[in-house]
Amino acid sequence: MNTLKIFSDLPLGASALALLTDGVAPHELILPARPAVSVLAASGPDPAFAGADIAFGQPAVDAVLQSPRLRWLQLASAGFTRFDTPEFRAAAARRRWLVTNSSSVYAGPCAEQVFAFMLAQARQLPLTLASRCANGSDQWNQLRNQCSSLAHQNVILLGFGAIGRRLVELLRPFEMDITAFRRSARGDEGVAVVTPGQLPAALAAADHVVNILPDNAESRLFFNADRFAACKPGAVFYNIGRGATVDQPALLAALQSGRLAAAWLDVTDPEPLPPDHPLVSAPNCHLTPHTAGGHRNEAESLVRHFLANFRRFLVDAPLRDRIM
Amino acid sequence: MNTLKIFSDLPLGASALALLTDGVAPHELILPARPAVSVLAASGPDPAFAGADIAFGQPAVDAVLQSPRLRWLQLASAGFTRFDTPEFRAAAARRRWLVTNSSSVYAGPCAEQVFAFMLAQARQLPLTLASRCANGSDQWNQLRNQCSSLAHQNVILLGFGAIGRRLVELLRPFEMDITAFRRSARGDEGVAVVTPGQLPAALAAADHVVNILPDNAESRLFFNADRFAACKPGAVFYNIGRGATVDQPALLAALQSGRLAAAWLDVTDPEPLPPDHPLVSAPNCHLTPHTAGGHRNEAESLVRHFLANFRRFLVDAPLRDRIM
Repeated sequence: MNTLKIFSDLPLGASALALLTDGVAPHELILPARPAVSVLAASGPDPAFAGADIAFGQPAVDAVLQSPRLRWLQLASAGFTRFDTPEFRAAAARRRWLVTNSSSVYAGPCAEQVFAFMLAQARQLPLTLASRCANGSDQWNQLRNQCSSLAHQNVILLGFGAIGRRLVELLRPFEMDITAFRRSARGDEGVAVVTPGQLPAALAAADHVVNILPDNAESRLFFNADRFAACKPGAVFYNIGRGATVDQPALLAALQSGRLAAAWLDVTDPEPLPPDHPLVSAPNCHLTPHTAGGHRNEAESLVRHFLANFRRFLVDAPLRDRIM
Repeated sequence: MNTLKIFSDLPLGASALALLTDGVAPHELILPARPAVSVLAASGPDPAFAGADIAFGQPAVDAVLQSPRLRWLQLASAGFTRFDTPEFRAAAARRRWLVTNSSSVYAGPCAEQVFAFMLAQARQLPLTLASRCANGSDQWNQLRNQCSSLAHQNVILLGFGAIGRRLVELLRPFEMDITAFRRSARGDEGVAVVTPGQLPAALAAADHVVNILPDNAESRLFFNADRFAACKPGAVFYNIGRGATVDQPALLAALQSGRLAAAWLDVTDPEPLPPDHPLVSAPNCHLTPHTAGGHRNEAESLVRHFLANFRRFLVDAPLRDRIM
């Protein structure tokens, strides 16, 4: 029997590591001297990588490009900015690497995070959780009047992968007017799709602008002053994708002018923002520290997703969450 | 033609008042010298009430009991504690009053409020909105691990009227295990129903305990120390019904012991709680000031709901949201 060597640089706890070791046996797990800092950050170079047939985690791009034996790389994140370059895509195609990510693991928690933001905004939780106003007071009447329902509102999703699809499922009971922005419509979206030329009109109609764009050369600073100016006055902006897709000074100006009623950002550039950054102190900007994908037993979820794909790999079945 | 006299004590703004006046014409609207303080509070006695065929708002119980001509009372709230007594019910039956409330107006916003609480808890928004921790730090790993998904969790709804039904619709995409507690099952709930004898076992299984009970003699202090002790360790308690249904010292003890992971309360007894009340300072108790039903143009929504029922009343059609 030919055993495969599986390299994993993930910072796994004891139970997730046991799950992975047992799950790949009798194939061999290779661990680096120093694992990656988190499920999001690239690990450093490691000599053990050269022996790997399969890599699972966040290896450095150079290590992958130089690997003599690699056949399949599964990333432990949904984002894959470091690998989303013409050079890497060309190498992956030439060397017939399978490249997968962990979208399935993060789609649910990420969609729930942006949904939590939307409902917290509708119910004005930042203000109402801080208020002890009395029933019938002027402040109380004003707070109740600032609250709203998501029902029948208009939302545009920018980027339409696993997170967007799950969010559409979650929003269904609200009978919202949902539009997705994609470079080209495939016809299987289940919602109206707008392409770049139609975007300004779609932004002008949207009460909720949900940015799920990945970070790559095309999307960098996508949300610039022109696009914020195209938004409906009083719209709410959410970012659950990557911070680099937003021109942050333009976002701040839109929040200060009132063009946007509020922003809810799980991602920024850099992360975290420095304490004196004006978005940190803007009263209508709500920040979470890139916790959208997090969930109890996240490492175990990542390992289970890898093992399910590993069983497919062993029998040459199509892998889930394939990106290249 | 016999014109009807419609008494309304609601504190309506100019546009809602115009909508009501136009909507009932050529029937006559009678306004009191002093309207109710809010859509929730009883108004004082008013001599004009005696002439009313129909009352819309929050009249005092005595005024209704003494009215010589009343045929229909529509309350401007979903709750109707003041009227939910054997004496009033007997009088309403004897004098053949129609009594309706405004459940339809509040069901959506109230269900969205408790749903916002559930998602804010799952995504740990009180902690994550306050944290500027760095990706990969110990605090970050801990925060991400405290986050969770609502998918496949267990929820019990106590009270199952319009709010509960709407909440079940909203929760559907999460494929949760949903149970409703009612005094007796009617068979049209669409979810599993437990009656009082089965409640301890149902509480022991629930990750989320949603209290939507109305306040009446049977429900007062329903959530007492025994019922909190029956909850699953780490459960989350939500109250969107009425504060008087909860034994607050028992709730505080359950929050302090860790039996409950957190409480999210839109209603308390009294409202608001005094600033030095221990529930106000408990770090795992999250309070909003009875803003659950609020929404933009709430007064207009109440008037539209009344007018829709008024048109039914005129042709003897069944009224919506009938409670007696």
